[in-house]
Amino acid sequence: MIYLDNAATTKPCESAVKAALAAVEGFGNPSSLHRMGLEAEKTIKNSRKAVADALGCRDDEVVFTSGGTESNNTVIFGVASRTKKRHLITSVIEHPSVLEPFKQLERDGWRVDYIGVDSNGKVRMDELSQKLDNDTALVSIMHVNNETGTIQPAEEIRNIINNVDESILFHIDAVQSFGKIPFSLKKIGADFVSVSAHKINGLKGTGALYIKNKNTLNPIIVGGGQQKNMRSGTENVVGIAAFGSAVKEKRDSEYVRMLRERLKDGILSNIPDVRYNGSNEEFSPYILNVSFVGIKAEILLHTLESSGIYVSTGSACSSNKPMPSHVLTAMGCSREEIMGAIRFSIGYDITLDDIDFTVATLCDKVAEIRKYMR
Amino acid sequence: MIYLDNAATTKPCESAVKAALAAVEGFGNPSSLHRMGLEAEKTIKNSRKAVADALGCRDDEVVFTSGGTESNNTVIFGVASRTKKRHLITSVIEHPSVLEPFKQLERDGWRVDYIGVDSNGKVRMDELSQKLDNDTALVSIMHVNNETGTIQPAEEIRNIINNVDESILFHIDAVQSFGKIPFSLKKIGADFVSVSAHKINGLKGTGALYIKNKNTLNPIIVGGGQQKNMRSGTENVVGIAAFGSAVKEKRDSEYVRMLRERLKDGILSNIPDVRYNGSNEEFSPYILNVSFVGIKAEILLHTLESSGIYVSTGSACSSNKPMPSHVLTAMGCSREEIMGAIRFSIGYDITLDDIDFTVATLCDKVAEIRKYMR
Repeated sequence: MIYLDNAATTKPCESAVKAALAAVEGFGNPSSLHRMGLEAEKTIKNSRKAVADALGCRDDEVVFTSGGTESNNTVIFGVASRTKKRHLITSVIEHPSVLEPFKQLERDGWRVDYIGVDSNGKVRMDELSQKLDNDTALVSIMHVNNETGTIQPAEEIRNIINNVDESILFHIDAVQSFGKIPFSLKKIGADFVSVSAHKINGLKGTGALYIKNKNTLNPIIVGGGQQKNMRSGTENVVGIAAFGSAVKEKRDSEYVRMLRERLKDGILSNIPDVRYNGSNEEFSPYILNVSFVGIKAEILLHTLESSGIYVSTGSACSSNKPMPSHVLTAMGCSREEIMGAIRFSIGYDITLDDIDFTVATLCDKVAEIRKYMR
Repeated sequence: MIYLDNAATTKPCESAVKAALAAVEGFGNPSSLHRMGLEAEKTIKNSRKAVADALGCRDDEVVFTSGGTESNNTVIFGVASRTKKRHLITSVIEHPSVLEPFKQLERDGWRVDYIGVDSNGKVRMDELSQKLDNDTALVSIMHVNNETGTIQPAEEIRNIINNVDESILFHIDAVQSFGKIPFSLKKIGADFVSVSAHKINGLKGTGALYIKNKNTLNPIIVGGGQQKNMRSGTENVVGIAAFGSAVKEKRDSEYVRMLRERLKDGILSNIPDVRYNGSNEEFSPYILNVSFVGIKAEILLHTLESSGIYVSTGSACSSNKPMPSHVLTAMGCSREEIMGAIRFSIGYDITLDDIDFTVATLCDKVAEIRKYMR
């Protein structure tokens, strides 16, 4: 099996599984006053420190959630329910867990601007500049796009925001970059950062949210007051334990970058009528999006699957809805390019041989499919 | 170790751990189109069927959440954002994950009535009857109280509601009864039922919500449209897999009832100045709340802990806040009774010997503590 769908989810690493099993053994409720509770609380504390260290922030700035979607919802709905301003900004290429909350707020009467992107998938800075005003409460722009891997210039965005009003809050959905692409919270000056465990070899069902100042948003889930009132509910100790271990795994981005280049060059040099979707300068080494023009991506996906290669037709996060990619649409891809787009997302356990086999298989299969289509 | 804090959380059962590990192996994203995704989706489907069977409802009426707290929040905030009515009813003895959403809605201008209880902890039906009106959108009353084990008369509540208006929605927080005390959704006529995995030997971080009619509430977490748009976000496959197995475990309530009677009789017959807090007719066999008058519960808790016995001073769900129990307060207990209240919550792996040892230890330790206090 060659698993090239790591942007959808990753295989839990050994250390994460081990930590999860230890948390199953020490099964106490972190809110219980006895030793079993204290042990579970300590597990959470250790994981919080590991995530904070990876983010480069203080432990008390990290809140655990049920995943990236909850983290994103918490920021957007949480700021909206707290601020007195009435304008919000995001981009057209965000993940649905960002776009949908904004659409809901728009229906509720908020003014929301969705900034466009250029053909490389980079958010238009001039447009952002124009849309910012004194009534803007929040700007939410992702770090790495989940479909194309294009990296957005977070520092530049913060500077543009500061030129208008330093008090405007800035949220980064870093689900596809956290643990993979180094970034400095301090340099960026982000107010909120969403991250997820299962994209970096932890378990599905656990995420975290960096919150610079707790007074800038209301929690969206309330109750027993866990996590200093920012996220009530008994903590997912097993998932949090796994997250704390997964985040410490060493990931060699240069190795992954080399794999990506080899895959990209292999496809572009050997297969006609393909188009690389993304940026040649600012890209994540973990994601490669290519359109095989004239081929239905789903057919290619299943053909590759029969050779043991697992890829995605775009984002898996949209719950297998057969919708044309909003990201590629925004980048100006043609209908044919969108319908034939495959996302290869690389993991650190992929080998050079895996890549070479994938290129060879693509060469064969794409030619075969095209032959039948004529 | 004698673990008598099963209302706080339970030890994951073998079958749940096995199912969790299988889901770690088949680690795909349920939204992915390839085999890995389909397998994960099938795991969720099987668990949904198991939970639906245990609830006595259709599979498509079950939505997985991150736990009881999220399930409760979803109902209360979800109905509030959907209905045009402006009146809500709950009881004074609900879990914080029910009370806090109502308090927030009250601050937002909703009319909320909190129904009181009698000295057995039973919600006052006459008061409920009086408070219901044509503007009432939702009545939320728990099934089994988490501190005392008192069972609320769900069918009677539904009848009282129907006398006013059959369209009034009825929510039951069944976190402490699901999988332990049989109840019939059809007989009760509940519109929403919240349940949790980690109270019945599953994992923390997974719960479910029965929703009779999806048009009666809006989701509180939106995004990729998973679970038919009712709860977006990549599903916690490991936790859901464990839940599906845990819910199938056989639990012998009659055995647990016998253990509770022995514990109760042992304490009440042998230790002076104690008070049983709860109902003698409608109680969960899994929970026993007793006040050791004149003793600080936390001291007794730690004394028992040193003998390997784990109990709670009340609810662990309030995130170790040192607040006097709102449940016992509402039942009219004195300050001394409240400060000395211990919750014993029994699991199906407890033996008669465990109970006898606990009674004997209590006899010794309570006398010892009282001696020092004179």
